[in-house]
Amino acid sequence: MARYLAITGGVGGAKLSLGLTHVLKPAELGIAVNTGDDFEHLGLHVSPDLDTLMYTLSGLSNPDTGWGRVGESWNFIETLRELGGEGWFNLGDRDLAVHVYRTQQLTAGRSLSTVVQEMHATLGIKHPVWPVTDNRLRTQVETDQGTLDFQHYFVRERCEPVVRALRFEGASAARTTPALLEWVTASDLDGIIICPSNPFLSIDPLLAVPDFRRALEQRQAPCVAISPVIKGAAVKGPTTKIMGELGLPQSSAAVATHYGNLLDGFIIDDGDAALATEITSEALKVRVAKTLMNTLDDRINLAHTALKFISEIS
Amino acid sequence: MARYLAITGGVGGAKLSLGLTHVLKPAELGIAVNTGDDFEHLGLHVSPDLDTLMYTLSGLSNPDTGWGRVGESWNFIETLRELGGEGWFNLGDRDLAVHVYRTQQLTAGRSLSTVVQEMHATLGIKHPVWPVTDNRLRTQVETDQGTLDFQHYFVRERCEPVVRALRFEGASAARTTPALLEWVTASDLDGIIICPSNPFLSIDPLLAVPDFRRALEQRQAPCVAISPVIKGAAVKGPTTKIMGELGLPQSSAAVATHYGNLLDGFIIDDGDAALATEITSEALKVRVAKTLMNTLDDRINLAHTALKFISEIS
Repeated sequence: MARYLAITGGVGGAKLSLGLTHVLKPAELGIAVNTGDDFEHLGLHVSPDLDTLMYTLSGLSNPDTGWGRVGESWNFIETLRELGGEGWFNLGDRDLAVHVYRTQQLTAGRSLSTVVQEMHATLGIKHPVWPVTDNRLRTQVETDQGTLDFQHYFVRERCEPVVRALRFEGASAARTTPALLEWVTASDLDGIIICPSNPFLSIDPLLAVPDFRRALEQRQAPCVAISPVIKGAAVKGPTTKIMGELGLPQSSAAVATHYGNLLDGFIIDDGDAALATEITSEALKVRVAKTLMNTLDDRINLAHTALKFISEIS
Repeated sequence: MARYLAITGGVGGAKLSLGLTHVLKPAELGIAVNTGDDFEHLGLHVSPDLDTLMYTLSGLSNPDTGWGRVGESWNFIETLRELGGEGWFNLGDRDLAVHVYRTQQLTAGRSLSTVVQEMHATLGIKHPVWPVTDNRLRTQVETDQGTLDFQHYFVRERCEPVVRALRFEGASAARTTPALLEWVTASDLDGIIICPSNPFLSIDPLLAVPDFRRALEQRQAPCVAISPVIKGAAVKGPTTKIMGELGLPQSSAAVATHYGNLLDGFIIDDGDAALATEITSEALKVRVAKTLMNTLDDRINLAHTALKFISEIS
């Protein structure tokens, strides 16, 4: 039996994760999720990336917005704004049930990974999904306007401040979720897929957890990443804006450089085919493929491409 | 300038309170509200009687249900139930904003009375309204099925258990909200109106707060109550069921006896006119009036009746 690990952040990574769940059985695929953009808001524990993945895998995601739930209503947040409450973070009425439920369970002393597991079971998600850690991990964005909590930067300030650096508060003391660590260190792991999420905001927080990074560095199985950058632009979100602000070239080649020796293979888009030779090295194979995922078939095809690439590298 | 205090629980009391606000200016009427049925639910601080009054006074109450908000939606609670969360207490999407806002403010260290004041200002409520106390006060119902938190008895168990006794946890250590104590002890207070709420569940918790009760006992101004019992039955809720279970006659006369020397006047319904002589004593005047409040005019008329009665007793 094959065993793979996918590492993902929010929207883009959730799309490929969905493709992978169509190709691999629950026993063949585990998914590690970023919790660096979790935050406490209105007294609630909000886990945006975990929820985006949960809604995507359970068929509940909103196809129009790319985040949140389908069939959502907004009466809670509208009323909260009328009361003068903090309304900058959109919380749908149905989405809110997840935050209230999760917060209640965490307050009762359960771990985040247990709560995820329970909710996924309820929603019929069969592939194991783990927050990278059950410990507190909070992405802090150092900007020209001072240090901002991730969601303050991302949602409230709409990624407008200039990013100077990123810090992952709590990472150095965090421990990888035990079942995830077992999965990634197992001797029969066949491959690791870093999904096309933002490397700086969505993937780096996971890599900042010391024993998770160590497990990846000591991997026996190939690790491949899919570039979230296509022809110098990100499909969604501030990836290339941040790359520019950090003084990096705004290209998929710079993404490969950023991941460095964590990668054995790198998948770039057809539109970046000309970069393949430049990126390829003795240690790094490159595959050119259609990486834009508009349809479910696109997601499944990219999943097949990644798995085939891994088997060729092995 | 006249000054009155209304003492109220939820639905029935809120109706008369609304009538009183139509008759008296904001500087002439203060309202003391039961917090014995407050509870912590799903990590939120819920204040049912305060909210019923807030929705009633701001025109937001739901005329169909008698509780909750008009134009409410139920997507939160529906989703929470799907997740396996506690769904027995109905929380509307808009109503939830009040609970989340209040909880956040309380957690930040504000008092309940401050939060009430702020929300009322936002919603355009001009008459002062105070929770009887900012301290913890929790009605406990001792039943044939053990001791139940009030809402567990009232909502989850639908008042079905047989009531043996009522306890007001926290009452003996509670202090009256300072502005309310000032209002009720002022030498120019003209009268006190105990609204037709459930005496045992809705009014007794207020009376169990020692310095509030003492202020009522030492009153200079007349105190009148409106019977919530009409011809042996309550307009709404378990009042007479509880009276029977506590071994009391199920009549408005027993309500007067229950309040005892707190009352100078007692208003009973036209349907109970035959009881007037029995209830009347040297210390207790009785007024017969239409106490059923179906329309706003009914509420205003009963308010006028109560105020006229007070002025006659004075």
